[in-house]
Amino acid sequence: MSTPLIEPVARLIESFGRLPGIGPKTAQRLTYHLLRAPDAEARSLASALVAVRDQVVFCERCFNISDQPLCAICRDPGRDEGRLCVVEEPLDVLALDRTGEFKGRYHVLHGAISPIDGIGPERLRIRELLSRADQAGREGRPFEEIILATNPTLEGEATAMYLAERLESSVGVVTRIARGLPVGGDLEYADEVTLIRALQGRRAVE
Amino acid sequence: MSTPLIEPVARLIESFGRLPGIGPKTAQRLTYHLLRAPDAEARSLASALVAVRDQVVFCERCFNISDQPLCAICRDPGRDEGRLCVVEEPLDVLALDRTGEFKGRYHVLHGAISPIDGIGPERLRIRELLSRADQAGREGRPFEEIILATNPTLEGEATAMYLAERLESSVGVVTRIARGLPVGGDLEYADEVTLIRALQGRRAVE
Repeated sequence: MSTPLIEPVARLIESFGRLPGIGPKTAQRLTYHLLRAPDAEARSLASALVAVRDQVVFCERCFNISDQPLCAICRDPGRDEGRLCVVEEPLDVLALDRTGEFKGRYHVLHGAISPIDGIGPERLRIRELLSRADQAGREGRPFEEIILATNPTLEGEATAMYLAERLESSVGVVTRIARGLPVGGDLEYADEVTLIRALQGRRAVE
Repeated sequence: MSTPLIEPVARLIESFGRLPGIGPKTAQRLTYHLLRAPDAEARSLASALVAVRDQVVFCERCFNISDQPLCAICRDPGRDEGRLCVVEEPLDVLALDRTGEFKGRYHVLHGAISPIDGIGPERLRIRELLSRADQAGREGRPFEEIILATNPTLEGEATAMYLAERLESSVGVVTRIARGLPVGGDLEYADEVTLIRALQGRRAVE
């Protein structure tokens, strides 16, 4: 007796459901929302999707997102050429750059090493990072510092270790962002590993 | 120093962020996922969006979603003409029909009365429901039963009350779906209102 879903609706639910973090219930809800929303809303989402695929590329030097062969950060002559910050995702560039604390350049790995997910170093932009550091050295302007700003997760830490070993010979100093208690956090509720890191990373009060 | 997002990316994040239940962080994550996903994934989502708007209409009798003027349920001659189930959303039709328990027809209100959100009866398909019941009566085949299957929420209950008053003169019997403990639920954790409803709705054991 059950009536099947009409095809375009089933297809949109399926397309939404393929996105990360969108379960079948959310996919249904989004679909029905767009069925009833103003026509412009659904169509502008569709055209934004196509525009992103047509107009956005990855920077050929740092693999950040860009609308030109070199991204805005790589094109900016005011950036500190001697410092490089290595991150997992383009979103991390955005988050770090928003702070205004770092004025060097970036390198986006597009992931972290994760043997369990079958992601080895060759699946990431690691070869490009190593040759970038190498080339800077050969050109007589080696990086003074490479900051490893991968996530403080198992995968991010493993990636940082892997990179540190391979970079130390060609770079002034390789650093890792601090792990510790987040500002506004509560010591009482912090997990053990974070507390250990916070203790290990303690610094003299200035 | 902060680098602005490139325009197509900013626009897609904004479009995703306008969807219900999608916050700015999720919108960013979906956008970056689609930047890196196979080209076909982004494009098939875009074309599914356009197809839904181009091909899907609301049934002119019951306001369920349809790809024809009358939906599959209204076209089905095997349905019980004497019973009508009133629901808030097309998703509810799907959920109820999947059970196979109800073999009559449906009427989709497209919402519930909610003065706090400025949704009065005139914003819903209530006028169409009342005239549907009226017309059936005038044609000598009044509905034997109209089941009010709006949600067991404040708004759904208010809508059911409102409809019951207006329908009772033109319909054999107006019923409301049972409120009680969900199957597999735990009495200990049920809220007070649900327990009251479960007690009030008790039935002799057969």
